[in-house]
Amino acid sequence: MFREKIKVVDCTIRDGGLINNHKFDLKFVRAVYKGLAEAGVDYMEVGYKNSKSLFSPKEYGDWKFCDDDDIKNVIHGVESETKISVMVDVGRVDIDDIKPCKESPVDMIRVASYVKDIDKAIYLVNHFADKGYETTVNIMAISKALDNELNEALEQLEKESRAEVVYIVDSYGALYQESTEFLVKKAKSILKTKEVGMHAHNNQQLAFCNTIEAIIHDANYVDGTVFGLGRAAGNCPLELLIGFLKNPKYDIRPILDLISEEFIPLSKKLEWGYVIPYAIAGMLNEHPKAAMELRSGDKKENYRAFYESLKGTDLD
Amino acid sequence: MFREKIKVVDCTIRDGGLINNHKFDLKFVRAVYKGLAEAGVDYMEVGYKNSKSLFSPKEYGDWKFCDDDDIKNVIHGVESETKISVMVDVGRVDIDDIKPCKESPVDMIRVASYVKDIDKAIYLVNHFADKGYETTVNIMAISKALDNELNEALEQLEKESRAEVVYIVDSYGALYQESTEFLVKKAKSILKTKEVGMHAHNNQQLAFCNTIEAIIHDANYVDGTVFGLGRAAGNCPLELLIGFLKNPKYDIRPILDLISEEFIPLSKKLEWGYVIPYAIAGMLNEHPKAAMELRSGDKKENYRAFYESLKGTDLD
Repeated sequence: MFREKIKVVDCTIRDGGLINNHKFDLKFVRAVYKGLAEAGVDYMEVGYKNSKSLFSPKEYGDWKFCDDDDIKNVIHGVESETKISVMVDVGRVDIDDIKPCKESPVDMIRVASYVKDIDKAIYLVNHFADKGYETTVNIMAISKALDNELNEALEQLEKESRAEVVYIVDSYGALYQESTEFLVKKAKSILKTKEVGMHAHNNQQLAFCNTIEAIIHDANYVDGTVFGLGRAAGNCPLELLIGFLKNPKYDIRPILDLISEEFIPLSKKLEWGYVIPYAIAGMLNEHPKAAMELRSGDKKENYRAFYESLKGTDLD
Repeated sequence: MFREKIKVVDCTIRDGGLINNHKFDLKFVRAVYKGLAEAGVDYMEVGYKNSKSLFSPKEYGDWKFCDDDDIKNVIHGVESETKISVMVDVGRVDIDDIKPCKESPVDMIRVASYVKDIDKAIYLVNHFADKGYETTVNIMAISKALDNELNEALEQLEKESRAEVVYIVDSYGALYQESTEFLVKKAKSILKTKEVGMHAHNNQQLAFCNTIEAIIHDANYVDGTVFGLGRAAGNCPLELLIGFLKNPKYDIRPILDLISEEFIPLSKKLEWGYVIPYAIAGMLNEHPKAAMELRSGDKKENYRAFYESLKGTDLD
């Protein structure tokens, strides 16, 4: 009953790092890696490859930069089939920092791009493919993309890029399952030589739903995070995804242990998940930034005023 | 773009009462009623009509019994189009307690029934229809129903009952959207003279998803609760549902106020929502009872042992 081609990509540390400036300590990251390895998860994305000339290592944790040596410290001595992924943002990476794949602990590089930057993304992804990495292009903020521009981007990706996977990224947690169906079918129809992936945000409690919907329509790369950790409302909870997939190679129990032992304590210190201002941002198809600002101030439960201010931006 | 026939039924106080033995004070229930009325919600379900010979009013709050006078105290002086609903469980109601609709503040009675009790449910629902009420039959634990028995129950409901609506109730929070589609299509194909309703539980964060899915396949009665309040994982969050429906008669803002002012404080005292043992019960298609027991004890974060014990029940 399971589809063997489906690959699960955990991005707990990468997307979760957007809440705490990537300041997870080595012990925590190793615990996550061990748990994912035992659970049979296909990939673990540990963070971003950002240029240190753009961001200061004094301000950010290691997982903003993902030096090969730091990754080696995570995986050292752990028996594992789980591959390592890192993310690269268009315009923020120094490509000379990326060694050939053979010399690196990284297996996959995912290039995050808005539709408008797709030419730059194609340049980067082809460069990383040349260096021997598995590659993806992740199209961010897809709920705001104009249909003709998205079509053109997908056609370019099909013709010009060596990316093996193209992701639909619901950055704003704004998609309902009908829109997910529409986008995945569109992507599948254009990307004849590539796989389609789904990265969902959970603003409206639809991240798992949209991930299932993408699977139904033949997306084979799906992202999750342990206990849904991730920026603002977070992501598709990995434990739900593993519970849904029927491939016997996955074991949910190590992920349950991770939640008991690491993520319940973490949830007392960091906020993510179903929080009304994030839900409002999702239903209004807006970036979570304003909601995150609200939550860090002293009017964080003033939902009506926030709703009206965010809705008002429609009228500007 | 909206479907006018869709009716939203709020069951915050009714389903939420299953967490606290129905002990909501009048002030709180009135606040919810006022908020729902301002938001334009079609129905508010305030509780159960249970026989006082079966349950002691000393042990339970008012909303276990829903005396007409208590309901009158809730709605008194509030300008409102919101109708009042109560729920009745097969075998727990004394039908002599139910006055004719004209003499009662109640507009709708919903009869909750397992498939096996459908004959009793039909008797009750016809009795309440005779007394002038709007009526529904809510088929509980539908994820455990055998297909042939469910078909027969739906055929009987179509032929023998005067219920205007038949609900699919995902008591265990076990349905994925494909199963919801299957069940709603089946119900619509058999219930040619009735509306179909959806009552979802949120164990796997799919209550909103399954409610949308039911709407897509022509269910016109949909249940929600403020901030998802309800037994164990709770229900479809009303605020998300109102955000999704495009009928301009609904206003989300009074519901946002209710959450800020009443439900955030309540969430510090009562537990409901995305809690791992409830998610496990959902994915294993089991009643949340064992998970609720776990959560009330001192091993409440011991997820692996709970998973193994609940999974073990398959083998008994």
